[in-house]
Amino acid sequence: MTQDFEMQLKDLQATVSLLEKGTKDQVSMVVFSGDMDKILAAMIIATGAAAYDMKVNLFFTFWALSALRDPRKSAQGKSFMEKMFGMMLPKGSRNLKLSKMNMSGMGTSMIKGIMKKNKVASVEEMFRTAGELGIQINICEMSMNLMGFKREEMIDYPNMSVCGVATFLADAAESKIQLFI
Amino acid sequence: MTQDFEMQLKDLQATVSLLEKGTKDQVSMVVFSGDMDKILAAMIIATGAAAYDMKVNLFFTFWALSALRDPRKSAQGKSFMEKMFGMMLPKGSRNLKLSKMNMSGMGTSMIKGIMKKNKVASVEEMFRTAGELGIQINICEMSMNLMGFKREEMIDYPNMSVCGVATFLADAAESKIQLFI
Amino acid sequence: MTQDFEMQLKDLQATVSLLEKGTKDQVSMVVFSGDMDKILAAMIIATGAAAYDMKVNLFFTFWALSALRDPRKSAQGKSFMEKMFGMMLPKGSRNLKLSKMNMSGMGTSMIKGIMKKNKVASVEEMFRTAGELGIQINICEMSMNLMGFKREEMIDYPNMSVCGVATFLADAAESKIQLFI
Repeated sequence: MTQDFEMQLKDLQATVSLLEKGTKDQVSMVVFSGDMDKILAAMIIATGAAAYDMKVNLFFTFWALSALRDPRKSAQGKSFMEKMFGMMLPKGSRNLKLSKMNMSGMGTSMIKGIMKKNKVASVEEMFRTAGELGIQINICEMSMNLMGFKREEMIDYPNMSVCGVATFLADAAESKIQLFI
Repeated sequence: MTQDFEMQLKDLQATVSLLEKGTKDQVSMVVFSGDMDKILAAMIIATGAAAYDMKVNLFFTFWALSALRDPRKSAQGKSFMEKMFGMMLPKGSRNLKLSKMNMSGMGTSMIKGIMKKNKVASVEEMFRTAGELGIQINICEMSMNLMGFKREEMIDYPNMSVCGVATFLADAAESKIQLFI
Repeated sequence: MTQDFEMQLKDLQATVSLLEKGTKDQVSMVVFSGDMDKILAAMIIATGAAAYDMKVNLFFTFWALSALRDPRKSAQGKSFMEKMFGMMLPKGSRNLKLSKMNMSGMGTSMIKGIMKKNKVASVEEMFRTAGELGIQINICEMSMNLMGFKREEMIDYPNMSVCGVATFLADAAESKIQLFI
């Protein structure tokens, strides 16, 4: 009888530790949009969660890669198509535009002015804070190839790697919160 | 031996009740978009979930605040910038536009007509139902400040408060379903 | 004493099996957008997850229905409004457009060319793979009615059904990962 209990208890402990693994205090987000307002929202949620001691993984893909470009850096050996894409897409978080009411940049400038007045950190500052808080930034490898961006054009950031969707899925499956932005 | 069991069981019970807390029958959404179609989608998911006895928390942020403005109300003491924003952004759920095929309002009117014909509730009606179902609406404080909206301009709604991203994170971490719309 | 243990253990086992049910190796997504880039992102995440043996449920709603239209099929008995909608919305995954930089189709063609060069599967191919991997596609009934699409106009796909938001909620509540795209 006692042995039977012991076995049942062991089984239960194994199941529970599996369940625990699946709901870590972790937030995983796909950051897809390259709009200034959506990148801002993603970074506010990310830094907020990190401030509350949650682990945060950001998987940057498609248009969001623009936010990670360092305007002072460039890369060699690009094809014509890659150069064109590079020219057409915003270079760095400072050059992102609002998804609505951009009005040739006027709306975006207005929002930046109001953010400053309200002491809301700029997107550039948020990336710095994110780095300090240990937020992980993963860059979607396929998106890099499609857009012709290279690793050496990206901002200096402490925890940054290039990887595939499998990494996002593994992180997300263990996270309490998952979002696609 | 028996005492050992007792301790292991206690440990396990504590872990399990923590895990239970983390997966309440609860849905938490960031409602970011101010497009009529996305607000509609958010409200359909929200009222659907509430009808199935799930607790629902909606965190309204950025453009989505437009949907909460009461067109019959106004606020005093606004700066020039705040007045301008107020004029440029849609005033209330009745004035939202489609994200695609708005065609100067024609597409939006068409969809509204078809919704009526198909007996789909309008966005205004959905907010009323949401209130009756006990759905919680939280307004992002930072967004209110950025856009210069004031609490007194918002619709009458039974469960509405103004709060920060921390509230969303706490709700979401305990929710079975989290979405960013 | 032993009996007491037995009862506590039984209680715990019941709770744990409930918790297990709530976090299946499952991904549920609302696919709302009809933009080529977002449909692509949804299908990459979906097929990626299915390749890792996760069960995947896609709930296609609103504009995303365009991606499921078979350009070679048509339906009888449509009203004038439904015919107009049918003409204005893209017919099939091959005709979707980028959310940004579409530039009258040039940007979309460019991306498709680069995808081919980089051996990234086209959206059409991804739907075929999705079917082979057993990914479930649910079409939002209300959206079908609103847009005037009929079941017989949709692509041939092995696991496809028409249903309501309740199905999505039930799937999502049991999923480790939920996204709104």
